[in-house]
Amino acid sequence: MQQTRTLTTQVRGHIGERIRIQGWLQSWRQLGGIHFLVIRDGWGQIQAVAESEEEIAPLINVEASVESLVAIEGQVESVAQAPGGVELHNLTIEVIAPIREVPPVALNKRKINAQISTLLDHAVVANRHPSRRAIFRLASAMMQAFRSTLTDRGFTEIQTPKLVASATESGANVFKVEYFGRTAYLAQSPQFYKQNMVGVFERVFEVGPVFRAEEHDTTRHLNEYVSLDAEFGFIENHFTVMALLRDILASILGAFQEQCASELDLLKASLPEVPEEIPYIHFQDAQELILKLHKVDVRGEPDLSPQDERWLGEWAQKEYGSAFLFVTGYPMKKRPFYTHPDPERPEFSNSFDLLFRGTELVTGGQRLHRYEDYIAALEQAQMSPEPFEHYLEAFRYGMPPHGGFAIGSERLLMQLLGAPNVRLTTTFPRDIHRLVP
Amino acid sequence: MQQTRTLTTQVRGHIGERIRIQGWLQSWRQLGGIHFLVIRDGWGQIQAVAESEEEIAPLINVEASVESLVAIEGQVESVAQAPGGVELHNLTIEVIAPIREVPPVALNKRKINAQISTLLDHAVVANRHPSRRAIFRLASAMMQAFRSTLTDRGFTEIQTPKLVASATESGANVFKVEYFGRTAYLAQSPQFYKQNMVGVFERVFEVGPVFRAEEHDTTRHLNEYVSLDAEFGFIENHFTVMALLRDILASILGAFQEQCASELDLLKASLPEVPEEIPYIHFQDAQELILKLHKVDVRGEPDLSPQDERWLGEWAQKEYGSAFLFVTGYPMKKRPFYTHPDPERPEFSNSFDLLFRGTELVTGGQRLHRYEDYIAALEQAQMSPEPFEHYLEAFRYGMPPHGGFAIGSERLLMQLLGAPNVRLTTTFPRDIHRLVP
Repeated sequence: MQQTRTLTTQVRGHIGERIRIQGWLQSWRQLGGIHFLVIRDGWGQIQAVAESEEEIAPLINVEASVESLVAIEGQVESVAQAPGGVELHNLTIEVIAPIREVPPVALNKRKINAQISTLLDHAVVANRHPSRRAIFRLASAMMQAFRSTLTDRGFTEIQTPKLVASATESGANVFKVEYFGRTAYLAQSPQFYKQNMVGVFERVFEVGPVFRAEEHDTTRHLNEYVSLDAEFGFIENHFTVMALLRDILASILGAFQEQCASELDLLKASLPEVPEEIPYIHFQDAQELILKLHKVDVRGEPDLSPQDERWLGEWAQKEYGSAFLFVTGYPMKKRPFYTHPDPERPEFSNSFDLLFRGTELVTGGQRLHRYEDYIAALEQAQMSPEPFEHYLEAFRYGMPPHGGFAIGSERLLMQLLGAPNVRLTTTFPRDIHRLVP
Repeated sequence: MQQTRTLTTQVRGHIGERIRIQGWLQSWRQLGGIHFLVIRDGWGQIQAVAESEEEIAPLINVEASVESLVAIEGQVESVAQAPGGVELHNLTIEVIAPIREVPPVALNKRKINAQISTLLDHAVVANRHPSRRAIFRLASAMMQAFRSTLTDRGFTEIQTPKLVASATESGANVFKVEYFGRTAYLAQSPQFYKQNMVGVFERVFEVGPVFRAEEHDTTRHLNEYVSLDAEFGFIENHFTVMALLRDILASILGAFQEQCASELDLLKASLPEVPEEIPYIHFQDAQELILKLHKVDVRGEPDLSPQDERWLGEWAQKEYGSAFLFVTGYPMKKRPFYTHPDPERPEFSNSFDLLFRGTELVTGGQRLHRYEDYIAALEQAQMSPEPFEHYLEAFRYGMPPHGGFAIGSERLLMQLLGAPNVRLTTTFPRDIHRLVP
């Protein structure tokens, strides 16, 4: 067999021809002397039908079972009842590598039938299941859409260090690393570096790991995750940032529809619409609204509770038909020191949270850009400027008004797909208990 | 001033019009009452000429100096002797944020004039210099070309964990992390995960940080760098991998030429040609060649010395007119345990190094794909299979013949540009002495 390989997704274009496929023996059923084989390759699967003992002999001779690697030559026939409408006949089977043990997670069932802990313990194999793979294909499409939208708008991709000399925003929740006799830390975010790089390229983005030593053990927390970060200069205020974020979400969801139709179908995912303009409400107005609608007085609280967020989500759905809602102007005291205040009401900030179906999805806003403002903000927060010496140098020598946001990619995917646990949208998750596989 | 902003790189298209630009005051020279301002934005720079005291007053009134943020409205005029052939006249200047201190590295000179340590200590500001920025723009173009070439060929992008339970290849040179009362390690490479993900997607790639706790203090070593990794299944042998690598290098260099002409010009970089087929020589033949050409007998040595590599580089240039040379078939004993042997001569491997101008640029090869071969290889290397339990699960349940390579992105850029130090092709390098900025 020297013929060129055809991918399973290309078979439909070869009806009547003899082709060669390669892949994993995903399933093998026998019905009255006929063997139905399903071969999975990196993109899809195809049925191959052996009607004689001679055809199937190469598999039987080596006692090959599912997940064996095979190459199969066969005639492509259009068969209405075959999955995908085509199947292979008159097979010549070659076993590339036989497998004789049963995988720890059954990959040949339509639905994956295992506890989440089993899925994660055996992720190396379980990730092959079409329903698991579909999620990771969406994750890849998400990153690609994020990058291409930003590249098209003049953003430059950067890669910033993950080993840092001091914690990004506070000393808590940071992993310590032994660094040649000193202590280094794992970056909790690329915040400082992406801001500094606005001084170089004006518009920058990064896709990379961030590390949070949080002791949370919930369905929403990972201790290492992939952050999609953007930051850009010469903005008007946080509304410029919100407009960009809206367009990025629209392009991610558009990419899912265009490039991942079969994955969405498999996952039975129904994706939200991103409105032309996502509605927004100021933090203070949100609290007034909650009092009016639910008779609960949260005015004066420095933050929104999960219940508050759910109520606001319901309201946005009812009032605007939107699954998305921006809450703007969070109180300064609950935001990090680099947050830009609202010039009109300095106790509130030029920042936002994006809620999706009543849960926080993305945080962002405008940052301070004047050196003197940083010094004053650090003093106010009773923080020493010394660990921030290098970061602050950018502002000392000229920075434009700027802002940005950070998206936790696994969590975004979890929420868009309605997955019950963020670990299910991560190939190899890291949590307080899990460092393997 | 409410007019829309024009980027400096778009000014040439607006001759005769009045436009508004924004950016940093890169330089400010005065000649006989005329003020020549150069404004830098995220993409380029443009000259603006103030011929009256009234025009320049907004800068003088606030004592603004270079690196101040400004918005300038002016008439675009075609002027042969102006840099880029156009400049702005009849200015209305607005100071967005005045700067009054002199930057620690002069950004307004054509050549950057500072010690490397000064450049790195003040990278936050020094990276703004057009010659520094050009390098980082090339780095971004490199990543983009790497991704798009692979995506076009059916590869899926993955993101694998950087916090791992055991060292990737050996216990040496690995950073330790305090992980909730246990010790975790920083991944030295995505090797195991990318191989495992070949079981899911067949063809995968990753762009991400890797961490090496090497105590080297040379011009070629970083302790954290960005690795461009690819791995794919159903290969014939290492030559399939070499063919892909050749195409990726060609597309990176093509992207430089097409997208970064002004950056290459600024850096006075002359890029190599990638031949249609990069010449290759077997390790054993290379040692015979060295004996023949240089009368030095290195036969039986398990590896090539830097001198050997230089000789081979010279030979490839002379014999094939190629700056690139593959050396194939390195002895198994110098390669990691997962390396696939040459079936004909099992003491040699199906692996390669790519030399560029006589220096190693990329390492790659075919990996083992049968579970029993891994068990035998670990036994041979006197390593316990236990820490590799999860990695090995992929092979236990079916993996195709596969291989791949890893490119150190900063080092590749250093070598292509002929930069004297890898730190100069890194925005914020990490070495044995440096954790800031």
